[in-house]
Amino acid sequence: MTVEEFFDQVITVRMREDRSSLDIIDQTLLPGTIKRINLNTKEEIWEAIKKLRVRGAPAIGAAAAYGIALLASGIAGDQYDAFYSRFKELKDYLASSRPTAVNLFWALNRMEAAVTANKERDVTAIKELLFEEADKIREEDIQISRGIGEIGFGLLKELKKEGREIGILTHCNAGTLATAKYGTATAPMYIALEKGWPGTAMHVYCDETRPLLQGARLTSFELYNAGITTTLQCDNMASILMKSGKIDIIFVGCDRVARNGDAANKIGTSGVAILAKHYGIPFYVCAPTSTIDMDTLTGDQIPIEMRSPDEVTEMWYKERMAPEGINVYNPAFDVTDHSLITGIITEKGMCHAPYDKAFESLGIGR
Amino acid sequence: MTVEEFFDQVITVRMREDRSSLDIIDQTLLPGTIKRINLNTKEEIWEAIKKLRVRGAPAIGAAAAYGIALLASGIAGDQYDAFYSRFKELKDYLASSRPTAVNLFWALNRMEAAVTANKERDVTAIKELLFEEADKIREEDIQISRGIGEIGFGLLKELKKEGREIGILTHCNAGTLATAKYGTATAPMYIALEKGWPGTAMHVYCDETRPLLQGARLTSFELYNAGITTTLQCDNMASILMKSGKIDIIFVGCDRVARNGDAANKIGTSGVAILAKHYGIPFYVCAPTSTIDMDTLTGDQIPIEMRSPDEVTEMWYKERMAPEGINVYNPAFDVTDHSLITGIITEKGMCHAPYDKAFESLGIGR
Repeated sequence: MTVEEFFDQVITVRMREDRSSLDIIDQTLLPGTIKRINLNTKEEIWEAIKKLRVRGAPAIGAAAAYGIALLASGIAGDQYDAFYSRFKELKDYLASSRPTAVNLFWALNRMEAAVTANKERDVTAIKELLFEEADKIREEDIQISRGIGEIGFGLLKELKKEGREIGILTHCNAGTLATAKYGTATAPMYIALEKGWPGTAMHVYCDETRPLLQGARLTSFELYNAGITTTLQCDNMASILMKSGKIDIIFVGCDRVARNGDAANKIGTSGVAILAKHYGIPFYVCAPTSTIDMDTLTGDQIPIEMRSPDEVTEMWYKERMAPEGINVYNPAFDVTDHSLITGIITEKGMCHAPYDKAFESLGIGR
Repeated sequence: MTVEEFFDQVITVRMREDRSSLDIIDQTLLPGTIKRINLNTKEEIWEAIKKLRVRGAPAIGAAAAYGIALLASGIAGDQYDAFYSRFKELKDYLASSRPTAVNLFWALNRMEAAVTANKERDVTAIKELLFEEADKIREEDIQISRGIGEIGFGLLKELKKEGREIGILTHCNAGTLATAKYGTATAPMYIALEKGWPGTAMHVYCDETRPLLQGARLTSFELYNAGITTTLQCDNMASILMKSGKIDIIFVGCDRVARNGDAANKIGTSGVAILAKHYGIPFYVCAPTSTIDMDTLTGDQIPIEMRSPDEVTEMWYKERMAPEGINVYNPAFDVTDHSLITGIITEKGMCHAPYDKAFESLGIGR
């Protein structure tokens, strides 16, 4: 399978060429079943976001944008006021699918702005513009990932000079299944495939990422299917793995980066960074500039979401795996101290400490 | 529940007072069901060891010793040669239950030696001696754990001067469920309870310990039932937990310690040690002197068992959690470098670096 064929199979979301429906990979069936489904009605699109058939901030944004474009194209009549009123109803309906997904509102608001900015034009033209705006949202995400991937690929090229399989460790899923195409932490590897590297030139070790197992279910699935040599391990095996000399470089994604470079990402990331520092392995955070929050001075200001105990004690299991009544500590994220980070890779360039200065020099926060 | 009542409920193995059967807690039903079962026949004893109803090296040793004593007591006739011949058959049968459990052979060989050393005595007396030898095996393990526990308790007493709940982290199960009574890593806490501390004076955080989840299923179960404040977390949450300031001290067990202090223990232990060093938290290995192997110069000489991929990809799960065909890295143990260990607690005393000298001064290996 070529990398193009791979993306054709697993791409999170796209509009069918005849614009008849939204085409997504149903992530709730992964890793056991690869099935693409068509979404046509507002109920189907709402349910797909709600039930995490499509997940990951950029992918949700693209799904919402294409979804509202598709639904808007079906609004009857050519009266702007009636069209806009119905558009708003549909938008509010889609926005109710995942009330905590910031990117969902961002994408829907941007689509609404495309309507209101063009209210002098006829409704048929506005419908066309909405498809174009959704394409832009998707294309922008692809360009961001590509920018990050090109820089990360430069690091892989340096390692390749040593002439052996390049060992890469990643945590959680910051992959194609979370974004429009390349992912963030996976972008260097996918760009390498596009540049003609064989998948066997790299060996990616995926932390399974308890409690929700995104590394096992999603990252190992996507890299394996892309033809990259892939191994899965439990999170607590990363130490001996690094000690064994198999890991040359680490790429992780992030949810939010503070001005000083402290990076919030999936729980366990800070532990990986500490191990990497101990064993002298470079540790890179792949961060679209949109995740860098210059108003957050340090990681201490980033609130950590605490999640349900049953994710740890029973969610995936055949039977309950811990005593009834036991306390559970289940933070969703942790913050990796900037001192543990070798570099933060943005689509605009590589950043090294001091990070506040590096971000400013890239024009971030201006 | 008092600590005595707790041990009465969960003690791994004991002979019934009327010597009619072996009484064990069925660990395969934990943590959901606490059920003690009686073992009477050789088949029942064999099956209990084979199916891990009793597990943990010292507990297996005690079960095998009591088991062979019980079976020997039922051998008909008073002729030594016939008795010894039948004893050997029963011993070989029990030894076949878990061919990799070193402590099983050690205990059975010691029981056989008790027979042959007393061959001049009558068979009735030998049968009685076998019960006494099994009691000794069990009592010796209890004394070893108590020795470790007293030293660990000394560390807890120092922390208690600070006047707040003492935060303790542990990994895997080196608890009462693996031994005859106090466990090794848990011994300091159980000794504290015996000394009259309330369970709320301590707060033990248990790593769930993927892939086999001994921390969730066993350690959090036993500590919680003993009335100690207990919290369960995924392995990858230990970093943020230590960063939060909740952890004052770490106790772990071990499988084997090299002459230089490198300690092999359940996979993930070395990662915990690296995090502890990073956050400045003392990290203690609880090691009966029988686990210290002076002929192994460093941890590099300790072979690491690689286990089945399905423990990671499907064993506990409702459905397979990783793609078919994925490579899996599943080492059972890792080695913690001696430089990361604050101290190694043996029943004969506390050891600090340089460990070879400390071990020699305790008379280990002589």
